[in-house]
Amino acid sequence: MENWQIEQLHTLFPSERFFTSTADLYSYSFDASFGEYIPEVICQPLHVEEISTVVKKANEWKVPIYPRGSATSLSGGPLPVKGGIVLDMSQMKDTLTIDQENMIATVSPGVLTADIHRAAEEVGLFYPPDPSSALISTIGGNLLENSSGPKGLKYGTTKEYVIGLEVVTPTGEIVKTGGKTVKNVTGFDLTRLIVGSEGLLGIVTEATLRLIPKPQAQKTLLATFHSPVDCGKAITEVLRHGVLPAAMELMDNACIRAVEHFQPSGLPIDAGALLILEVDGTDVSTENEIGHCQTICEHAGAISVQVANNEEERAAIWKARKMVSPAVTELGPTKISEDATVPRGKIPEMMERLQEIRERYQLNLVVFGHAGDGNLHPNIITDKRNTEEMKRVEDAVSDIFETAVELGGTLSGEHGIGLLKAPYLEMEYGTAGVNLMKSIKHAWDPNHVLNPGKMFAEEGQTKVVLT
Amino acid sequence: MENWQIEQLHTLFPSERFFTSTADLYSYSFDASFGEYIPEVICQPLHVEEISTVVKKANEWKVPIYPRGSATSLSGGPLPVKGGIVLDMSQMKDTLTIDQENMIATVSPGVLTADIHRAAEEVGLFYPPDPSSALISTIGGNLLENSSGPKGLKYGTTKEYVIGLEVVTPTGEIVKTGGKTVKNVTGFDLTRLIVGSEGLLGIVTEATLRLIPKPQAQKTLLATFHSPVDCGKAITEVLRHGVLPAAMELMDNACIRAVEHFQPSGLPIDAGALLILEVDGTDVSTENEIGHCQTICEHAGAISVQVANNEEERAAIWKARKMVSPAVTELGPTKISEDATVPRGKIPEMMERLQEIRERYQLNLVVFGHAGDGNLHPNIITDKRNTEEMKRVEDAVSDIFETAVELGGTLSGEHGIGLLKAPYLEMEYGTAGVNLMKSIKHAWDPNHVLNPGKMFAEEGQTKVVLT
Repeated sequence: MENWQIEQLHTLFPSERFFTSTADLYSYSFDASFGEYIPEVICQPLHVEEISTVVKKANEWKVPIYPRGSATSLSGGPLPVKGGIVLDMSQMKDTLTIDQENMIATVSPGVLTADIHRAAEEVGLFYPPDPSSALISTIGGNLLENSSGPKGLKYGTTKEYVIGLEVVTPTGEIVKTGGKTVKNVTGFDLTRLIVGSEGLLGIVTEATLRLIPKPQAQKTLLATFHSPVDCGKAITEVLRHGVLPAAMELMDNACIRAVEHFQPSGLPIDAGALLILEVDGTDVSTENEIGHCQTICEHAGAISVQVANNEEERAAIWKARKMVSPAVTELGPTKISEDATVPRGKIPEMMERLQEIRERYQLNLVVFGHAGDGNLHPNIITDKRNTEEMKRVEDAVSDIFETAVELGGTLSGEHGIGLLKAPYLEMEYGTAGVNLMKSIKHAWDPNHVLNPGKMFAEEGQTKVVLT
Repeated sequence: MENWQIEQLHTLFPSERFFTSTADLYSYSFDASFGEYIPEVICQPLHVEEISTVVKKANEWKVPIYPRGSATSLSGGPLPVKGGIVLDMSQMKDTLTIDQENMIATVSPGVLTADIHRAAEEVGLFYPPDPSSALISTIGGNLLENSSGPKGLKYGTTKEYVIGLEVVTPTGEIVKTGGKTVKNVTGFDLTRLIVGSEGLLGIVTEATLRLIPKPQAQKTLLATFHSPVDCGKAITEVLRHGVLPAAMELMDNACIRAVEHFQPSGLPIDAGALLILEVDGTDVSTENEIGHCQTICEHAGAISVQVANNEEERAAIWKARKMVSPAVTELGPTKISEDATVPRGKIPEMMERLQEIRERYQLNLVVFGHAGDGNLHPNIITDKRNTEEMKRVEDAVSDIFETAVELGGTLSGEHGIGLLKAPYLEMEYGTAGVNLMKSIKHAWDPNHVLNPGKMFAEEGQTKVVLT
C-alpha cells in the first residue's frame, strides 16, 4: 500500500481502532494454523458503513482486504497472505437479541458463539452449532467458515441455522439476504452461498439465526472398544435402532494415550477406540435411549460402558473429550489439524487407512472426531523447523485427502479450504466445478480484493504446508 | 428454432422420446399456474449425457431450454415463455437407492417425492420435506423450487436435506457438487445455490438426500378458534412451552366454509380459524406433548379441541386439510395460489391484513397455510376471462406481497418466483441484491439459455398476472 492510502484510511477511524505499528502488525500476522503473513494496516470497524467505505476504497485501489474474527481458523482462512488491510471484526459486537416468539437471534459478527448459546438457553431456546472454539471464536467467523462441531448428525450444520444476513459485498455495497422466516425461496439463496464462503464473497455485518426449543434433558455414556471397527459397528447399530444421538465423539488409541498422559483420569490406554455418546430430548426419552445405546455398545463388543448418573459424571466424561486439544498440543510444537470427512459407514475403513498413513510416514498422528457425521480430525504433531519431517507431513496430508475423497468423502468438513487446502480443491470438485466457483468470485469481486490467495490455488501452487 | 436444429436434435433421441406435433406441444404449454406458452420441441432424456448434449446444442444455437418435472409449479416455473426446447425430466427415474447405514438416498430427478417417502419409511428412515403435490411432483422439481410443505418449522426445508447433486450446467458441463456427507465445506456451496435456483443455473440429474430416523409415533389434534388472533396465541404458547410440532396447519373461516361445502364433515363453519397440530417422536413424548398442546389451546380460548385417539381419527383430521385444494379449486375457474411468508409472530397481523385486502378488492380470498413456519397460502378464486376482476386480483396480489415484506417476511416461502413474481423481486432484495443474483446467472449462462424469462423481470415488465 502507498502511504497516502494508509493516511486516507486513517481519516476514517479514530486512532484507538487503527493500527500500523510493527508490534501490532505482527499481532495480526497469524491464526490457529501455522502460517505467518504481515499485513500493512489494521482497522477495527464498529459500523456497517465504515466497512462499506473501507471496502470501496480497497476496491478502488485494488488493495487486498482480510476480514478476521478471533483468528481461530485451522486452515489459514484470515491470514493476510498478500498484505494490505486486516479488518478486525471482533469489536463489532453490539447486537445480540433473542426474539423468543419467533425463535430467532439477531447478532453482530463479533459476538462470541458461546454468548449466543447462553442467551438462547436463558429463555429456553437452543443454538445447536458448537465448534470447539465456541468460547473464543466469533459468530462471523463461524458463519463464513460454516464450522459446526459435534452436533451435525442430529442438528445439521451452522448453515442450517442462518436465515438472514446483512453483508458488505466485495465492491462495498450493503445487501440484505434472506430474512426472518425459515422458508424463503425469493431468488437465489445468497444467504447459504455466503455462509461458508470463507470471506471471499462478502463481509457479514449482521446475521439472523434460527433457534429451536432447548431439549429438557441429556444423557451421556462413555464406551471403550478393542478397535475402531467395533466402535464403528456400535455407531451403525445405534442409528439402525432409530436413536439419533446429539453427539458421538470418537478417539483413537493415540488420542486416548495423549489425553491420559496429559492428565491421568483412568482412561484405558490399551483400548483401540473410545466413544462418547450423548442423547438429548425429554427425561423419559433420554432415559430410554441411553439404555438402548448401552445395550448396543455391549453387544458390539465394548470393553466397558459407563453411563453418567448425574451432571458431575457427565462433566467428567466430557472432560476427556475437551482435553484432547490441549493434550495434543503438548505433544509437539506444530500441530496440523485436518478435518477430512467420510460417509459415516466408512469410518472404520478411514480409521484403518489413517493408521497405515501413520506407519508409512512414521508420524505422530492422533485421530479424534465427530463420528456421527463422519467428520474426523486427524492431527499430525510435528515441528515446522524440521524440514525433513515436514516433507513427510506434506505427503501424509496429501494421502489423507486422497483417501477421504476416494471413500466418497470430502477434504474439509468444517475447517474450510483457506490457504492450506487450496491446492487440493480440484481433486474433489474437478476443473469444471472449480471454474463455476471462480466465476462467482470474479463476477462479485472483479478486482479480487476480498481475502485473495485463499480457496483457489495460485498458478503453480502445489502443497502449501511448508509456506 | 430453425428446422435443421429440430432435425439435428431428433437424431439424438428415438421418436418415442421426441415430440413436435401440435397436440404434444400444447400438452406441454401449461403448468399448475395459469400461463400458457407453446414450446417448439419436447425431449424426454433418460441419461445425463443426453442432457449435456442437448444443452450444449442449445447454448451454441442460443435457443431457450426449459427443464420440467411434473409441472405442478404454481409460479409458472417451467413455462416455455420464449418457446424453444422443453426437457421433460419425468422419465429419468431409474435410481431410487436407500443407503440405510449412511442414512442417505440417491435419486434420479424424475422420481416422485412420495416414492422417496415410501422407500425411506420401509427401512425405518424418514425424508421430511412433503409438498402437498408429493404424490405427483418429481424430486427434481421439488429441489429446484425448494418446495417443502408443512414440516419446515421442526425439520427445516428441502434444502436442509440435499447434500449432493449431479448437475448439467447451462453450458452443458456435467458437474458434481457436495457429496455423501452432512458436513462439507469444500469450496462455495454450489449444492445449496442450485437447490431453489428454479432451473436457471443447472439441470439436476441426480441428487443425494440426507434421511433421518423415522419417528415412532404421531399424535394429532384439531382445534377451532373464534379468530386467527386466538389461534396465533395458541401457536406461540405451544412453542414457548418447548413443544416443536411436526406440523401446524391453519385454515381461515373462508377456507373452513369451502371445505365443509365441498364435502360436509361437521366442521364448524362459524369458527374464525381452524388449527391442525401434529407432534411426532416416541410413544411417550407424543402422548405428553399432545396433552400439553390440548391444554394450551383450551387456555387460549379454543372453541373445541379434538385429539385423535387412533389412526382412523387422525386420518379424518388430515382429510379436512387435504380437501382444501380440491375444495378451493371448485370455487371458480381460476385459482391464484400465493405463498407469502411472515415471521411466525406476525401471523395474526397478516391474517387481519389479508382480511382487509379481501374486503378492499371484493375478492374471493381464502387463506390456509403452514402456521409453524409463517408460510401462508392466500388463494384468490377468480376467472381469468373476467378482465375487470383480474385487474383487482393484480392489485390484491401486489398488496399481499407488500404486506408480507413490510411485516419482515418474504414474497415466496416455497412456490418460487418463476414468471408470476418476477416483477416483485427487487421489492424484497433491492437492486444491489438482484444484481448479485443476475451476475451469477450471467457468469454461468452467458447466452441465457436455461429457463429464460423467469425470476428476473424483463425490461418494462410490471405485473404479469394477466399474461
